[in-house]
Amino acid sequence: MPSRPDLEITSPANPRLKQVVGLRRRRARDDAGVTVVEGFEELGLALDAGVRPRTLFYAPELMLDADTQLGVVDDVRASGVETIRVSRSAFEKVAYREGPDGFLALVPAVRAGLADLELPAAPLLLVCEGLEKPGNLGAMLRTADAAGVDAVIAVDPVTDWGNPNVVRGSKGTVFSVAVASATLDETLEWLGANGIRLIATTPDTETLHTEADLTGGVAIAVGTEKFGLTDEALRAAEVRVRIPMSGQVNSLNASVAAAIVVYEAVRQRAG
Amino acid sequence: MPSRPDLEITSPANPRLKQVVGLRRRRARDDAGVTVVEGFEELGLALDAGVRPRTLFYAPELMLDADTQLGVVDDVRASGVETIRVSRSAFEKVAYREGPDGFLALVPAVRAGLADLELPAAPLLLVCEGLEKPGNLGAMLRTADAAGVDAVIAVDPVTDWGNPNVVRGSKGTVFSVAVASATLDETLEWLGANGIRLIATTPDTETLHTEADLTGGVAIAVGTEKFGLTDEALRAAEVRVRIPMSGQVNSLNASVAAAIVVYEAVRQRAG
Repeated sequence: MPSRPDLEITSPANPRLKQVVGLRRRRARDDAGVTVVEGFEELGLALDAGVRPRTLFYAPELMLDADTQLGVVDDVRASGVETIRVSRSAFEKVAYREGPDGFLALVPAVRAGLADLELPAAPLLLVCEGLEKPGNLGAMLRTADAAGVDAVIAVDPVTDWGNPNVVRGSKGTVFSVAVASATLDETLEWLGANGIRLIATTPDTETLHTEADLTGGVAIAVGTEKFGLTDEALRAAEVRVRIPMSGQVNSLNASVAAAIVVYEAVRQRAG
Repeated sequence: MPSRPDLEITSPANPRLKQVVGLRRRRARDDAGVTVVEGFEELGLALDAGVRPRTLFYAPELMLDADTQLGVVDDVRASGVETIRVSRSAFEKVAYREGPDGFLALVPAVRAGLADLELPAAPLLLVCEGLEKPGNLGAMLRTADAAGVDAVIAVDPVTDWGNPNVVRGSKGTVFSVAVASATLDETLEWLGANGIRLIATTPDTETLHTEADLTGGVAIAVGTEKFGLTDEALRAAEVRVRIPMSGQVNSLNASVAAAIVVYEAVRQRAG
């Protein structure tokens, strides 16, 4: 498909830019079915993961390396994606982050149901119940990507996968890691149907995470920092494990706790 | 010592409150030799760790449970600490966090040299080189507290231990965990003199973190997310280890990476 001429926007009052600003609200994202990807690196990860943007907004004046990066814009445009050139001042008004690098794309919403997940035999899953902090969810996605976790399931999430701070905090791994959202009931039924054992993390057990068998098909469940997993999730677990703690405060960051147990599973599965 | 009558402040223009606002700058904190502790829970952790505030600012109207919490104010005052009652509106102006809970204390600066550290035999240490994100440093302190790390050493830090976001992110563990700041040279010399082995984390090695011996006196070193450890630190290490990564992005949050290796050490040392 031939490149089409770019639309150029210099006014922050332009309705297309106002729409982008409006997408900071979850409701607006849901209605539009889009997720906002900001930043050259994050866009690259999304493209590598096979994501096809609906629209790419770009500001050459803000790019760190416009010569090279405009080539990426050309490639995206050549693939049939609408590209819109934006002046520096207008881009800075719509950018979500401070110090924007001149790239912001609207991509189809990250939205997957459990039924869409394609799992290998004996998968390693991470289940996050009720998580609210986008930064934690983003960090968990990075851990899942690095550790080779087969899917991350958000159970009754307060934060949606398309939250700009999740996308940003995940360094784009929200596009490379398989994700799903579901209720707890749906998740438990689906795990059971697929023969996947639920491993619950909680301080209220004697079993250390290093003592449990984390090989085979397992789903490691973590709750919120404040309240942990719900009673329903704890009851449904085959095993409850705790991370040993010997300090005065004894509360780990939720994404840190998830990483410790996930990497213990990686250790056991490599052995 | 008898309780003294409280000073009461209702104007945000009061010089005492203006001074607190000024302490957001590192330079002002260094000059005054104070660290700001905000929040009832954080204050409690500091008090439990033996910290003696210089001044406690409190706003009963903002307290979640004034009946109980004013008792803590009484105890602090009875120990000879200056307590200053502040009106809700004035307190909200000086509070660092959104939704303040009516407690803000100035405490002596968290400032320790390597020579001040008291170590057990065969200590487990965490060395953070060049870290800049206060949130990461705070999360590492929580990990260090939970894992029973004997001291955390910030090498050539960009962020100081007294940064309000470190104090906050650490959930007060900056007061319960032994900390120090030093240059890399000082740290390497001190480790050598104490017979502590330096374990460097880096992607550029074949040895997995689970394959290295992490028992005995060890210092686990982590660098920045972007650049990792410096060449000097890598060269000085007895062992270089990597966390296995199999994803597309292959970058873990710095505090997550630290926790994975620290907890592998905990596992080995318990065995």
